[in-house]
Amino acid sequence: MSDPIQYDPIGVIRTPFDDPEGMPIQPTGESAARGTVDLNDEYEAGLADLEGFSHCILLYHLHAGDDAYSLTPTPFLDETPRGLFATRAPSRPNPIGLSVVAIESVGGSELTVSGIDVVDGTPVLDIKPFVSAFDIPDEPVDGWVESAQADVKMAAADDRFIEESSE
Amino acid sequence: MSDPIQYDPIGVIRTPFDDPEGMPIQPTGESAARGTVDLNDEYEAGLADLEGFSHCILLYHLHAGDDAYSLTPTPFLDETPRGLFATRAPSRPNPIGLSVVAIESVGGSELTVSGIDVVDGTPVLDIKPFVSAFDIPDEPVDGWVESAQADVKMAAADDRFIEESSE
Repeated sequence: MSDPIQYDPIGVIRTPFDDPEGMPIQPTGESAARGTVDLNDEYEAGLADLEGFSHCILLYHLHAGDDAYSLTPTPFLDETPRGLFATRAPSRPNPIGLSVVAIESVGGSELTVSGIDVVDGTPVLDIKPFVSAFDIPDEPVDGWVESAQADVKMAAADDRFIEESSE
Repeated sequence: MSDPIQYDPIGVIRTPFDDPEGMPIQPTGESAARGTVDLNDEYEAGLADLEGFSHCILLYHLHAGDDAYSLTPTPFLDETPRGLFATRAPSRPNPIGLSVVAIESVGGSELTVSGIDVVDGTPVLDIKPFVSAFDIPDEPVDGWVESAQADVKMAAADDRFIEESSE
């Protein structure tokens, strides 16, 4: 239907995670894991002014996955198959990863961030500043994730209640 | 440094905008402009469950731009050159566009959204559900955009003051 599109990575993300197994999982909350976006030297000037923002959006190529994907995967948080485009599953037709991360520092062609959950060596496609007026919608409703997270919280609360009630 | 990455569009975005000139500009606030994401039929099953979300993130290829970019463009909102990766300028090494849009309806392989500001025929790369827990950071600070927007508001307020004081 359309011609293929070709992108060249602008750098790589350096993290402590050699494989997906040990990585923090997004929905469990704020990850403190630090990583460095190591841009190719030619792009260094493009990092100016980024340090004034608290957060940025990283777009990267999820290179560690396999090429197979399901259009109805069962997400980590859920037990029900969901439409792929209603999930953040990494296996997708175009495996572009997106993370909102906190900017820790910028120096030379390196951008240090926290809240990063990708494997070491992930190719970076783009860096955008996080701009509240563009990126935070009015009254977002989180679909199945909302009820799944409520279930998780309720399960945790139940466990705590059992422990507390045994005193 | 890294191998090129190839993506195949999963569909196209249909909008009323034939060229960038007449398009709404993001920072002026919520756009009511509607568009339809017309997915290739093979991906229809992947849209299940998306209607439960109020918003989604569209990733698309900014095909209407030229290939040239500046690492220090002067943004629309500003009069000062800024580092490219601290701007949302469409001309970038990898021209991937990102918009948080409101989901109006899903039917067959079509997703109707509002708040879309791309030209008709823009190739879609990915659709992700907007998930507050992943996509809204704590206490975002908007860098130069914050002061630029404040300047715009102040200018508008000044004009109003002049008009009001002439009564």
